[in-house]
Amino acid sequence: MSRKRQATATDVARLAGVSQSAVSRAFTPGASIAEETRERVAEAARQLGYRPNAIARSLTTRRSRIIGVAASYLQNHFYPDVLEALSRGLQARGYQMLLFMPDAGRHADPQLQEVLAWRVDALILASTTLSSELADQCQAAGIPVLLFNRTSRGPSVSSVTGENERGGRLIAEFLVAGGHRRLGFLAGLENSSTSRDREKGFAGWLAENGHPPPLREVGLYQFEAASAAARRLLARPDRPDAIFCGNDHMATAVAEVARHEFGLRIPRDLSLVGFDDTGPARWPSFSLTSFSQPVQPMVDATVALVCEMIENPAAPTRHEVVRGELLVRGSARMPPEGCVSLGEQLVWRPVRDG
Amino acid sequence: MSRKRQATATDVARLAGVSQSAVSRAFTPGASIAEETRERVAEAARQLGYRPNAIARSLTTRRSRIIGVAASYLQNHFYPDVLEALSRGLQARGYQMLLFMPDAGRHADPQLQEVLAWRVDALILASTTLSSELADQCQAAGIPVLLFNRTSRGPSVSSVTGENERGGRLIAEFLVAGGHRRLGFLAGLENSSTSRDREKGFAGWLAENGHPPPLREVGLYQFEAASAAARRLLARPDRPDAIFCGNDHMATAVAEVARHEFGLRIPRDLSLVGFDDTGPARWPSFSLTSFSQPVQPMVDATVALVCEMIENPAAPTRHEVVRGELLVRGSARMPPEGCVSLGEQLVWRPVRDG
Repeated sequence: MSRKRQATATDVARLAGVSQSAVSRAFTPGASIAEETRERVAEAARQLGYRPNAIARSLTTRRSRIIGVAASYLQNHFYPDVLEALSRGLQARGYQMLLFMPDAGRHADPQLQEVLAWRVDALILASTTLSSELADQCQAAGIPVLLFNRTSRGPSVSSVTGENERGGRLIAEFLVAGGHRRLGFLAGLENSSTSRDREKGFAGWLAENGHPPPLREVGLYQFEAASAAARRLLARPDRPDAIFCGNDHMATAVAEVARHEFGLRIPRDLSLVGFDDTGPARWPSFSLTSFSQPVQPMVDATVALVCEMIENPAAPTRHEVVRGELLVRGSARMPPEGCVSLGEQLVWRPVRDG
Repeated sequence: MSRKRQATATDVARLAGVSQSAVSRAFTPGASIAEETRERVAEAARQLGYRPNAIARSLTTRRSRIIGVAASYLQNHFYPDVLEALSRGLQARGYQMLLFMPDAGRHADPQLQEVLAWRVDALILASTTLSSELADQCQAAGIPVLLFNRTSRGPSVSSVTGENERGGRLIAEFLVAGGHRRLGFLAGLENSSTSRDREKGFAGWLAENGHPPPLREVGLYQFEAASAAARRLLARPDRPDAIFCGNDHMATAVAEVARHEFGLRIPRDLSLVGFDDTGPARWPSFSLTSFSQPVQPMVDATVALVCEMIENPAAPTRHEVVRGELLVRGSARMPPEGCVSLGEQLVWRPVRDG
């Protein structure tokens, strides 16, 4: 197979009767150019079989228009939803997404290095945190880093999260108001900020209000590990009458075990509350009461923030928190009051004295 | 914030006491280099804060080591599983994944053009087919294209698929052997090769064996559309006693509607069979009998084929078909014979005369 000589931007400019800079702008996402010019350039490019060269463009503009995205744990419906929204959001701003999936348990630095070699304009980390060393390297290189649905214990890195702690507090209050007396908590990954913050809110509210601490098991945010944890919790003589599961993905696993292995009815024998409001949580079989992490607002905040950080890499660190709601469905006994309609959805708005 | 002068490969070579070409090989995925040399280079790079430049490397090697991947429809658990496996498989071969998600219903060409501008080494399309024009462009530019879980009607493009037609035939035989008499078929996207081929196998076997054609509805591979289609099918006076749903994602929607809106018991009142063997299909609540499309073998075949195509862009088109099994679970009435154990799994191996 022989390759024809590749047409250049100069060839296109000549045929379209425009300047070479107009050709360049026509193929730079977001660049300013008259629609009529853009169409003339596109037509000339089509005729000549010209393809713009993003690599050459990135050398000229010193902007790659690539954003590195680390994601994994796609078994949890929340993350596929996030990926789709993020991809659309970044594409709309003229960015491509270089996706990499760190292996669970393996240090992500070597893979991140390869992503950084592409001179990405920014990094969005949705499934890993950053080592201090790599955070320093990114800062030295002026590459903005944003954590999605997590915060960093060590170096201060900008982040977008849901209301993990407030969600945990509200769920504790909701379950106590619903008359539950033996509460359980199913933790996710112990070193994740989401699990820590949700537990802090849940256990914190219980302690402040004179209730015993919840029975506790660890489900690692995984279906199998959550199933095993549910077996341990439900086999106890002092079985909990309500379990706050660290996310919906684990809550569906607990529901499966409770029904199919222990013959329990939900919520008559056991109340379940999850976190995220995603995927199967909304199906009638699960109908999970869950604290929401609304994907589109979280992704919108992420795209806006990352674009700002690219424009101004020296801007101070920011932590955006996107508001959620405790959505009341059928998986947990309802308190006698405090559940109010919000559109077609029932939400928990506790009635407080004063 | 001031940036230090960026260390160069020459600085690293000098400090490590190796040639510049050794530095380059140390940072080229898959390149041959002694481990001891690689470590000396890595240490020198770390001390100097040197980051390899993949953009410069791609200009030298004329290989970007980026593969463009089009995916979407992540609501169906099959695709997140594919993405994770594909990302790991490509990373292991030293490739990065430039992911883009074509908007449903919109022509993907403009987005593909931007991906091609990155001089990707290959394109894997898991959620869209290629227009003839773009296929020609890719061929002219020597960019291998591979269709995943789909085939192309128009220009001949290499592909990796499951056994769509054979799966459809086996499911028809299985349901008839199980004593079902009014079969339904829930189609996916009408213009998708998967839906066409599965239906061809299903309806073809029925016709060849003297059975009436199945009742037919279209679920577009979407949860909501499949739910609506299920309502139409189940409200008929001649309601089917078994439905072959074009994939598991639609089958879970049908199960939800059948149970929670029509009060049907599965499989006593209605048998369901899906396709894919993915995610919730395996949960006890659904326990779907399903023809499998094994993700890891499909992805392994894809990664191997795409690497071959990159090495030899002139190689002839290939269509790899990965073998599946009809996995027998609880959602469909079983035939009196033909179900055999395969490891911990029951599969359908029809007993044939002769």
